[in-house]
Amino acid sequence: MYENFEPAGSAIGYRVTRKLDEVQSPFQKIEIYESTDWGNLMLIDGAMMLTTRDNFLYHEMMSHPALFTHAAPKRVVIIGGGDCGTLREVLRHPGVEQAVQCDIDEQVTRMSEKYFPELCESNGDPRAQLLFDDGIAYMANCAPGSVDIVIVDSTDPVGPAEGLFNKAFYESCFRALAGDGILVQQSESPLVLLDLIKEMRGEMRKAGFTAFQTLPFPQPCYPTGWWSCTLARKADGFEFREADARGKAFATKYYSADIHRGAATLPPFVAGALDL
Amino acid sequence: MYENFEPAGSAIGYRVTRKLDEVQSPFQKIEIYESTDWGNLMLIDGAMMLTTRDNFLYHEMMSHPALFTHAAPKRVVIIGGGDCGTLREVLRHPGVEQAVQCDIDEQVTRMSEKYFPELCESNGDPRAQLLFDDGIAYMANCAPGSVDIVIVDSTDPVGPAEGLFNKAFYESCFRALAGDGILVQQSESPLVLLDLIKEMRGEMRKAGFTAFQTLPFPQPCYPTGWWSCTLARKADGFEFREADARGKAFATKYYSADIHRGAATLPPFVAGALDL
Repeated sequence: MYENFEPAGSAIGYRVTRKLDEVQSPFQKIEIYESTDWGNLMLIDGAMMLTTRDNFLYHEMMSHPALFTHAAPKRVVIIGGGDCGTLREVLRHPGVEQAVQCDIDEQVTRMSEKYFPELCESNGDPRAQLLFDDGIAYMANCAPGSVDIVIVDSTDPVGPAEGLFNKAFYESCFRALAGDGILVQQSESPLVLLDLIKEMRGEMRKAGFTAFQTLPFPQPCYPTGWWSCTLARKADGFEFREADARGKAFATKYYSADIHRGAATLPPFVAGALDL
Repeated sequence: MYENFEPAGSAIGYRVTRKLDEVQSPFQKIEIYESTDWGNLMLIDGAMMLTTRDNFLYHEMMSHPALFTHAAPKRVVIIGGGDCGTLREVLRHPGVEQAVQCDIDEQVTRMSEKYFPELCESNGDPRAQLLFDDGIAYMANCAPGSVDIVIVDSTDPVGPAEGLFNKAFYESCFRALAGDGILVQQSESPLVLLDLIKEMRGEMRKAGFTAFQTLPFPQPCYPTGWWSCTLARKADGFEFREADARGKAFATKYYSADIHRGAATLPPFVAGALDL
């Protein structure tokens, strides 16, 4: 099973044994495959979303750097993230009092519950709230200053997720976030999509954010195998709670205080392309 | 054009426009393709070796971490490395007095001169010596203590390169290296081939090396898009010449002192698998 990435002129494939499921939701086509080496695979509209084996890289990096950068994150909103893997990581932080996950497509969560149950093991946490609704409207309607961290865990900026990559959406996030709030968004491949990262940071800046940090990490199932998240803050600076990260009471497979620090220093060619 | 990686159950593909060349050497089949987004591609026996666009990641990480770890590297031997990209990076270090590249297959270098000329731009450097010979025999015949750094820049441990991944070869390297010498070898994907890295380090230890360091880095054209090199020292410790790395007089695209430091701290799941 191969997925061709038109913008990158490259492809990634997996040896699959069978198709386990397929559902056409009102928003997109979701397919589940069983593979020989990577566990189950979820594809949305033909694009690889996650594998059992390597999703920990993405989910840990979408959550822990932001949560260990904020001084005391209590109220977290996840836009997208229907597979619930990011939610699970967020809820590992004992200080989090409320985590709202707002994905437009309930079928993504239903498929994840069935084929990636380990990602959904915190869905019953009393702090978790699962909404199946339009994330753009949700952020627009949030009470000002009511959120500590917004995590945009979406598909690529085409189709349903297109509206999550522009100034209007970032303005909603800016307004919803408290003064020390952090927005973090998956920001595609730092090897081939540097223009997108630069544009994203530009739109975030126009929306009022003043400080930005792009963290690369490996992610085999996404184009080029190298991915990134981008953090934006209203306030300046990205010093993280390194002592807390070192002393955390939960286990991680990829994230660590050292990995966090290492990811924060971009390779020269990435920094150069972003005019840093 | 797709390459299937049997041991990983995955594949990587490139959108190619045409085949530019093909040669069957006495050792292997070398193919050159032109691609839409990645420049030229070189495949050996069907396995992707390098692309114009992303080879800098590999070549910089195969050379600069080792050269900036050794206190004063003067004599460097590259086993394999026929595309000459590692040689070019090694010769950027003004302190290097001699760099011997010993690849068994002259055709790799001839193809690289033609289709990757930028990698061969230092081949005429008076410090460079290009040999087309058996790297195992070359290392076995090196005068004891005559080499500061051995770089094993080979294909995977099957076919011609198989003999570069065992105790006998590492013993030759150990003997050829001076007391503060460093061996560095490409060590496959830290995501799916951790057993190989562990075995490699075990064989290096049996050959007499006492300290090891595995550095991961992104490499889109290799399986999983995440690769590694492993350094071995006779002496203990891997503190590198950080001030020299920061003040280096040549440009790099991926390598930097910060990237070096970051790569040196392994993610928990890699460290765990290596019993570190």
